[in-house]
Amino acid sequence: MRILVTNDDGVYAPGIKILAEELCKEHEVHIYAPQEEQSASGHSLTMRRPLWKKKVRLSEEFETYAITGTPVDCVKLGLHILETENKPADIVLSGINRGPNLGLDLVYSGTVSGALEGAILGKPAIAVSSAIFNDGFYPSGAKFILKFLKNIDLSKFTKFSALNINVPPLPSEEIKGWRVTNQSIKRFKDRYEERLDPYNNKYYWIFGEMLEDDEDPSADYKAIEKGLISVTPISPFMNHSEKTESLYKYLKEVEKIK
Amino acid sequence: MRILVTNDDGVYAPGIKILAEELCKEHEVHIYAPQEEQSASGHSLTMRRPLWKKKVRLSEEFETYAITGTPVDCVKLGLHILETENKPADIVLSGINRGPNLGLDLVYSGTVSGALEGAILGKPAIAVSSAIFNDGFYPSGAKFILKFLKNIDLSKFTKFSALNINVPPLPSEEIKGWRVTNQSIKRFKDRYEERLDPYNNKYYWIFGEMLEDDEDPSADYKAIEKGLISVTPISPFMNHSEKTESLYKYLKEVEKIK
Repeated sequence: MRILVTNDDGVYAPGIKILAEELCKEHEVHIYAPQEEQSASGHSLTMRRPLWKKKVRLSEEFETYAITGTPVDCVKLGLHILETENKPADIVLSGINRGPNLGLDLVYSGTVSGALEGAILGKPAIAVSSAIFNDGFYPSGAKFILKFLKNIDLSKFTKFSALNINVPPLPSEEIKGWRVTNQSIKRFKDRYEERLDPYNNKYYWIFGEMLEDDEDPSADYKAIEKGLISVTPISPFMNHSEKTESLYKYLKEVEKIK
Repeated sequence: MRILVTNDDGVYAPGIKILAEELCKEHEVHIYAPQEEQSASGHSLTMRRPLWKKKVRLSEEFETYAITGTPVDCVKLGLHILETENKPADIVLSGINRGPNLGLDLVYSGTVSGALEGAILGKPAIAVSSAIFNDGFYPSGAKFILKFLKNIDLSKFTKFSALNINVPPLPSEEIKGWRVTNQSIKRFKDRYEERLDPYNNKYYWIFGEMLEDDEDPSADYKAIEKGLISVTPISPFMNHSEKTESLYKYLKEVEKIK
């Protein structure tokens, strides 16, 4: 297959290189990734300025381009350039992200947005994250993805759907398999700190800890805790959900009030 | 009620001022909005640097702060500051956005993300957009929202749910009412243009036109075309959707393959 690879940690991050090196054992790989780190860039895209692309040498085995934009920009431009060169991509892969993308991380994640943009543009697409904030376990994720692509029928990807995959921080041989999971309500409990800058202006840091109180046994983070790879089908649609069901019904009752 | 108002067009955009002026006829209004325009910022948030807040004088009737961040940052910090001052907000409003937020616009929209962040933090939340790229019809949206808040029972907002409202470009008296709608598959058909900069480097513009091919009669943009206000219940969850249903079932069948 011909695979477009992007990420949000930037083209020089170790996760994307390890993924691409593994994939190119069996596939044709093209990296289009942000020139600078774009973590927590969400699904932002560059509208008011153009994009530059710069050739980067990560490996002899595949071509790598740094793009002056977000993961969404990289997927749009990369798919377009490959199309123009008569080399249309078969699938978009985004990652391997440094750190988990579980629960409400998804809405902030540039990695997930890279995959969703692939889905919007009609390609099968997968976001991959290593569920720990260090660089130790990218090989486990890369090896899993290579095997997963062999076992999965890509024609089953429905229009506008993608997968969000998280890999537990374990060596390959200790991973217990993979499970289909649901995006959980895992989220930040924000904390705030006020400080004074040297010019006596107040400024704020936002940080926090994780709240893990989802009652669904199929919650994404619970698979990771059990040493399983979490595979969540996702789409860029925010309605039609059980979360909005009762609000939807209420509004249907009152919509005739002008 | 006490209302936190944000937007993505920036604190000096006319849409937020017109909304706040209308709301403060009956409510206590606090603006926390981005110091600079953040259109298409998606759900991005500021992680690696702190945030500054600057008092701005938009009106004698309400307090306004410019924040050096995204709409998501503004909602987080604004709700926190109001809480600290024993003035917890009852609802978050994001807008009025310059231009529609319909279909797949939602994933790129800073305005929608402002509302979703309110929902994530446990508040009823509404994103409001004027469905035209000019500044002529904000009063229609502002008047509607003031009336809507009177007619709607905020206790019906379920956890993690928000509303995405789009107002057609018409004077108030020509608007035919409002309808509950579904987020449509309306999206950009991208076009790309290559140019050379004065230093002879190639660069790319991404632009495009809209594809409107949704078969659902309740599609959001179809309400606007009929002169109706579109009200879509949304949540920050990307799974559990009919769009991923068949992919989900397929994966459940094959998940036992290690």
